[in-house]
Amino acid sequence: MKAISPEKTAVVLLSGGLDSTTCLFLAKQNMDKVYAISFDYGQKHSIELKRAKKIAKSQKIEHSIIKIQTDLFQGTSLTDPKMKVPKDSLKKHLKDNTIPNTYVPGRNILFLSFALSFAESRNAGRIFIGVNALDYSGYPDCRPDFIKAYQSMVKKGTKSGSKGHSIQIITPLIHLSKKEIVTLASHLAVPFKDTISCYDPNPLTGKPCGHCDSCILRKKGFAEAEIIDG
Amino acid sequence: MKAISPEKTAVVLLSGGLDSTTCLFLAKQNMDKVYAISFDYGQKHSIELKRAKKIAKSQKIEHSIIKIQTDLFQGTSLTDPKMKVPKDSLKKHLKDNTIPNTYVPGRNILFLSFALSFAESRNAGRIFIGVNALDYSGYPDCRPDFIKAYQSMVKKGTKSGSKGHSIQIITPLIHLSKKEIVTLASHLAVPFKDTISCYDPNPLTGKPCGHCDSCILRKKGFAEAEIIDG
Repeated sequence: MKAISPEKTAVVLLSGGLDSTTCLFLAKQNMDKVYAISFDYGQKHSIELKRAKKIAKSQKIEHSIIKIQTDLFQGTSLTDPKMKVPKDSLKKHLKDNTIPNTYVPGRNILFLSFALSFAESRNAGRIFIGVNALDYSGYPDCRPDFIKAYQSMVKKGTKSGSKGHSIQIITPLIHLSKKEIVTLASHLAVPFKDTISCYDPNPLTGKPCGHCDSCILRKKGFAEAEIIDG
Repeated sequence: MKAISPEKTAVVLLSGGLDSTTCLFLAKQNMDKVYAISFDYGQKHSIELKRAKKIAKSQKIEHSIIKIQTDLFQGTSLTDPKMKVPKDSLKKHLKDNTIPNTYVPGRNILFLSFALSFAESRNAGRIFIGVNALDYSGYPDCRPDFIKAYQSMVKKGTKSGSKGHSIQIITPLIHLSKKEIVTLASHLAVPFKDTISCYDPNPLTGKPCGHCDSCILRKKGFAEAEIIDG
């Protein structure tokens, strides 16, 4: 059996949303071995974990759900029952250049760092993350300059990096519009109906709210791509 | 009651060893509010968690032990029962410029990232970490250029950083020799007997092995400082 090289081994951060699922399909197409990891951090939209599990299973991808204690993240409407997820306010906070209360303190830094330990432990040389800095809510941990800084830090702070073969952070969607992501996902035959993007789904039915930033961006993407969601 | 500012609020990474305990005492001396966090990641030397707990309690510091699933880190003798912690080999691997198998993939990156989410969630502006790049095992995630790169990444990837008041990583021991750390700890009245530095203590008695890198460095520090350990 031929050994699989680190360059062909990837860890994918899979939330169960459209973007991360598209990343998973891209990784599957381009890599020889793919691991998917998801995080259970007390998010109100924990239904995404079921979706992630289903998607990984259907694609025969080894999937881990990492549990993070629910009181770590504070001051975010994605976990705090007393805070409301903003509705129909994407335009306003983009115009005002404010970061909405759905920002989770240091979330992508922590998730990437888990992926990094996971990858270096298993000799995987690539980490795929579906961040996007075009049709997004303005989170700092989705932007290209953050990814670049994270990459530099990985080079300095890991054994593999210090030996000159740093684990690479791959962000295939970072410069795409939501329309382009939807089109790409369609080409890759991503099962749209299994993905969920909503921050605040109905707790009983799991139905997307249709009004949070994530729902608005998803609707916009499908409308502009002229593709039917579902 | 006067509000405590982020500049005077710190999160300290506390392993229960000499260096991190010294950091805790420095933080306590210089800050108005201090949190300590420790990590349970399946380390063979989990006795350090009991010591961390005891030290935090005696100093009246709010202390959290964060559980990380034990199969995350692989290929390290600090967790793998099949791998042996190297003994009496510090000089050799420093001479050969190799990283010993006690390196834990991405550990300080992950621990700092937990501290970061914890700090930003609680409006703490400082993170203390007791890394040291002089009398150490040669781990890349203890060196000044790594800390500098981590700091730059924090500035780009957090809400606080993007607003110009980035959380600062404080490394008071990074340029000190072990002798200087022991002397400083002595001045601060650190209870030496409560700290433990060993990677491979006796599982029944908790007694340090005396031969791992960490034991050798500790002995060297006390001998050169002419201070009695215990």
